[in-house]
Parts: sequence; C-alpha cells; structure tokens
Amino acid sequence: MSLLAIGSVAFDAIETPYGKTDKIIGGAGTFISLSASYFKTPVNLVAVVGDDFPEAYIQLLKDKGVDTTGLQMKEGEKSFFWAGRYHNNMNSRDTLVTELNVLGTFDPIIPDAYQGCEYLMLGNLTPAVQQTVIERLVKRPKLIVMDTMNFWMNVAMDDLKSVLQLIDVLCINDEEARQLSGEYSLRTAAKKILGMGPKTLIIKKGEHGALLFQEEKIFFCPALPLEEVFDPTGAGDTFVGGFIGYLAKTDDISFENMKRAIVYGSAMASFCVEKFGTERLVELSYEELLSRVQEFKTLAGFEV
Amino acid sequence: MSLLAIGSVAFDAIETPYGKTDKIIGGAGTFISLSASYFKTPVNLVAVVGDDFPEAYIQLLKDKGVDTTGLQMKEGEKSFFWAGRYHNNMNSRDTLVTELNVLGTFDPIIPDAYQGCEYLMLGNLTPAVQQTVIERLVKRPKLIVMDTMNFWMNVAMDDLKSVLQLIDVLCINDEEARQLSGEYSLRTAAKKILGMGPKTLIIKKGEHGALLFQEEKIFFCPALPLEEVFDPTGAGDTFVGGFIGYLAKTDDISFENMKRAIVYGSAMASFCVEKFGTERLVELSYEELLSRVQEFKTLAGFEV
Repeated sequence: MSLLAIGSVAFDAIETPYGKTDKIIGGAGTFISLSASYFKTPVNLVAVVGDDFPEAYIQLLKDKGVDTTGLQMKEGEKSFFWAGRYHNNMNSRDTLVTELNVLGTFDPIIPDAYQGCEYLMLGNLTPAVQQTVIERLVKRPKLIVMDTMNFWMNVAMDDLKSVLQLIDVLCINDEEARQLSGEYSLRTAAKKILGMGPKTLIIKKGEHGALLFQEEKIFFCPALPLEEVFDPTGAGDTFVGGFIGYLAKTDDISFENMKRAIVYGSAMASFCVEKFGTERLVELSYEELLSRVQEFKTLAGFEV
Repeated sequence: MSLLAIGSVAFDAIETPYGKTDKIIGGAGTFISLSASYFKTPVNLVAVVGDDFPEAYIQLLKDKGVDTTGLQMKEGEKSFFWAGRYHNNMNSRDTLVTELNVLGTFDPIIPDAYQGCEYLMLGNLTPAVQQTVIERLVKRPKLIVMDTMNFWMNVAMDDLKSVLQLIDVLCINDEEARQLSGEYSLRTAAKKILGMGPKTLIIKKGEHGALLFQEEKIFFCPALPLEEVFDPTGAGDTFVGGFIGYLAKTDDISFENMKRAIVYGSAMASFCVEKFGTERLVELSYEELLSRVQEFKTLAGFEV
C-alpha cells in the first residue's frame, strides 16, 4: 500500500571518534524514505530543500524508488543544516550547528497524486506542520505513525498534545517518554501516553532495544549487539521508516504484525549505524536485510 | 544435582524512595541460595556470620531447604554490614556504610558432606577466597559460575585474572565488562573476556536485560518492564542464583539450556525487586515463577 512520508531533507555534518564528514545528505525524511523503500511499496515524500541542495542527492532518493514530486525546492533559500559531534561512547552528542533555513517557513503541500495514501509517517517536525499534513489529506490514512522529540515538548507541548489525538502510533525514545508522561517507569509512562491519544506506543532505547505497547500488551525487541557503532545519526528515523515500510508492504496492522515490523525496523537501524549517514542504507541488499532479521530471531529466541 | 554456593550472608540497611529498612538479612550468598532453592535441587551454603546474626534469619534459609552446615558463626565478631541509599531512578545508589567485620578474615571451610558437588556458584567475594574454594574441592565441579565486581578489578586484578582461568561462566554487569576488557562495545568486550578463561560470559544490564555469550553465539533476554522497582538490592545475585539453580536442576549445560536458565534467572530477579530485601523471594510460589517465565516468552517472542 502507498506510504506518505513527511520529514526534513537536509545537510548533516557529523563527527564521530571514527572520522568526520563534510555536508552530506541527512534529515528524518531522507532516512525514513530510504529505509521504507526497501519494502517495495510506493514511498511518496513531502519535504522542502533550498536551491543549494544537490540534484545528485535527490537522484539518490529517486534511484531507490522514492517519489519526490512533493519535495519543494525554494529558490534563493538554503537547506536545513545540522552539525554534531558524538562522544566516545556514541550515546551522547553535542549539537554544533542548527540552521533551520527553509524549514522555518515550511508549508507541507500534498500533491494530488499523493492523496489516498493508506500509511502516513510524520517524521520529526513542528507539531503544527505535522497536524497540517493530517488535515490536508482528503481521506484519513489507515495508519498514522508519528515521531517527535523533547524539543517540541519544551516549546510546543499544547500543539504536540493536539496532534497526539489524531494519530495511531507514537514513536519516541525513553527519555522523551519520561518527559511526556512525567513518569520514570516506562511501563507506567506508556500507560499514561496511551491515554493521550495514540493506541500504540513505541519506545526506542537505542542500543538497549525497543518496546512496543498496545492496550495491556508489551513486546520487546533487542538491538543487535554490534562490534562497533560507526555513526548513530539517522538510526531512529531508519528504524521507524522500516517499521512503517514493513506494515505498508504487508498491509496488516495487527499487534502480531507490528512485532515483526519492529524487528524489521531494528534490523534496518542496525545497518544504518555501520557507516556514515545514509551510506550503508544506500548500498544494502534485501537479502542482507532478511539475513539480519534471522540474526534477531537467533538472538532473542528461546523455548521454555 | 547438588549446588554449592559461596557468598556473603550479612545485614543490609536500605533506603529507597519507597521507604527504609532497619538491618535486614542480605548478602550475595543469601540471595543466591534463596533463588536457587526454588529449583528443588540441594543447595549447600558456605559463608560466615558473627554472633550478632539472628537464628531466625538462618532458619529462613533452612526453611527453604538450604543446607547451612557450611555457615560458620564467629563468636565475639560481627556480621558484614552494608547500608545504601538508592536515588530516584533506582539506577544509582550511594553506599552509606560498609563494615567488613567477619568477612575480613573469611576462611571458606568446605564441609565433607559438600564434596562432590556438581555445580559451584562463587558469589561476589575476594578473588583469593573464591580461588581457595575451587582448590579445596576434591573433584572439579561440572560447572563453575563466578560473580565479581569492579571493586576487585581496582584492588586485586591479578588475583581476579587467576580465578578467571579456573571457571566456566563469568557473570558481571555492563560497566564491569567494559572495565575488565577496556572495550566500550559489549560485543568486543565479550570477545576479549572469553579469551581470559571463561568459556561463557553473562553481561547483566539491569533494567536493560542480560546478554549471554559463548564462542560466536549470543543470546539476549530482556528484563520485564515493571510498573515500579521497589528495591533493586540483591537482584543480580538472585538472577545468577536462578541461573545456576535451573542448570543444576536440569543438569544440562548446553547453550540452549543456558538460554532457558537466563530466562528463569531474569524471572527470579523480577520478583526480587518488587519488595524490600528478600521479602518477595521468601513468599514466592513455584507457580508464580512459571507464570512469569511465560510472560518473558510473550514479551520477547515473535515469528518471522
């Protein structure tokens, strides 16, 4: 089924203990689209860049089958730019530069051809923009998944709570779940957040895996223990892109299938961190993905 | 098969956000024995207390079928005492008091009736004392599991490395694995530690679960997401006690069975933290344990 993804398409400059990059392609919309594209389902992207954005980077998305009709290019403006430096343990990072640029006035225009999409992925953006996307869809999608971050909880909590009423699945990390709920225990936090609108909650714990909550049900998927994490940038977006990509492909939103989708998302994320930026995602084969999903099964499987 | 456990039997005084205790029964030997006792296998304890240790606390162990012949009581001396205060998130704690007392001169005497044990659990103690226990056994046990902590890596690394050569399974937490190996990645740390002697390594990650490493094989068991953690004291000892208790009961040390043992250990630990000290462990039924093991299966199970 067709998938509509919205999120930033941008420049990242990354420093990790393994090296540093110049401005390379990044942004939530980029990682989500690339990850979802592996599931052979139409991926339609709505995003905005400036006229400094290289055609080659857009071509990279097109080559993976991503429809970029909805990617606006603003003449005379610059693309969103983020620069960050990861610490030795890769679990914390300093933001060195955030230049909002075109993202500051982003008006998410939905091309007519994108109407009727069954799956909607709202990548991390201003909650007001996320809500606008929902309101501009003529028919409500079968499933709306939303990512957000602590920044919006600090500066736009009311807007955020308003969008939460309209979505099906919220995907945030453990610290964000604690901030949003005011609860330390993730189980208690989940209960509170599921009372705010979404019927399903995913809590990402990075190297510690991910939790899926729905009603009284809980599923846990570990992260694959890796010998080295080269660059964590985009891992969370890649995860959720794989999650919704798998659901759109299989068109089954049962809890059992969401469990599988979490495993596929985790497998995609485990590739993402192996190289800088989108490098590993671009060269990945579907066979490698299937083989890694089996590694997750071996890692977590037991008989009692 | 019979299990020999060695470790401290002591007083703990605990403060958590939920309340505080007077001196109550604690110590690695206590939690290990109580946990292992649920597996209906003979549990023989070697430990030392002072004459201030209440008979009622020793009776509590006996009531669970723990053989306390090897529990020495030193006249005119005091028992080991630890007091600690947990912070709000329960993940960090301050040690308020550590009084070594009888543990300072502990000579682990093995009663003749304990000779021939098939399973040996070396709870956290001076590495030299742990090694003495191994040397005093006439026949090498089928499986030797050892727990230790960062303190011994700081003050007795040579002794620790010497015992590592003699054991089969090492059980430590993630920070200890990083300190022992000098590696941040747990996968790389495991590779190095498996080159130091033990054929199997368990890395405990507290609320983030546990990893089992053997040769190239890895298994991950999540921790059960709990609404509240009342008191984490003894959870690690309870975990490893359940692990070796299950192995001794089933007498199968294959990797597949160790996976099950990790799940049983994790289930035991999930009970331990529900109340202060040993309180929940003492009142637990075997049926509750089996039911919780099924919760782990539901939590971690998926089909792909």
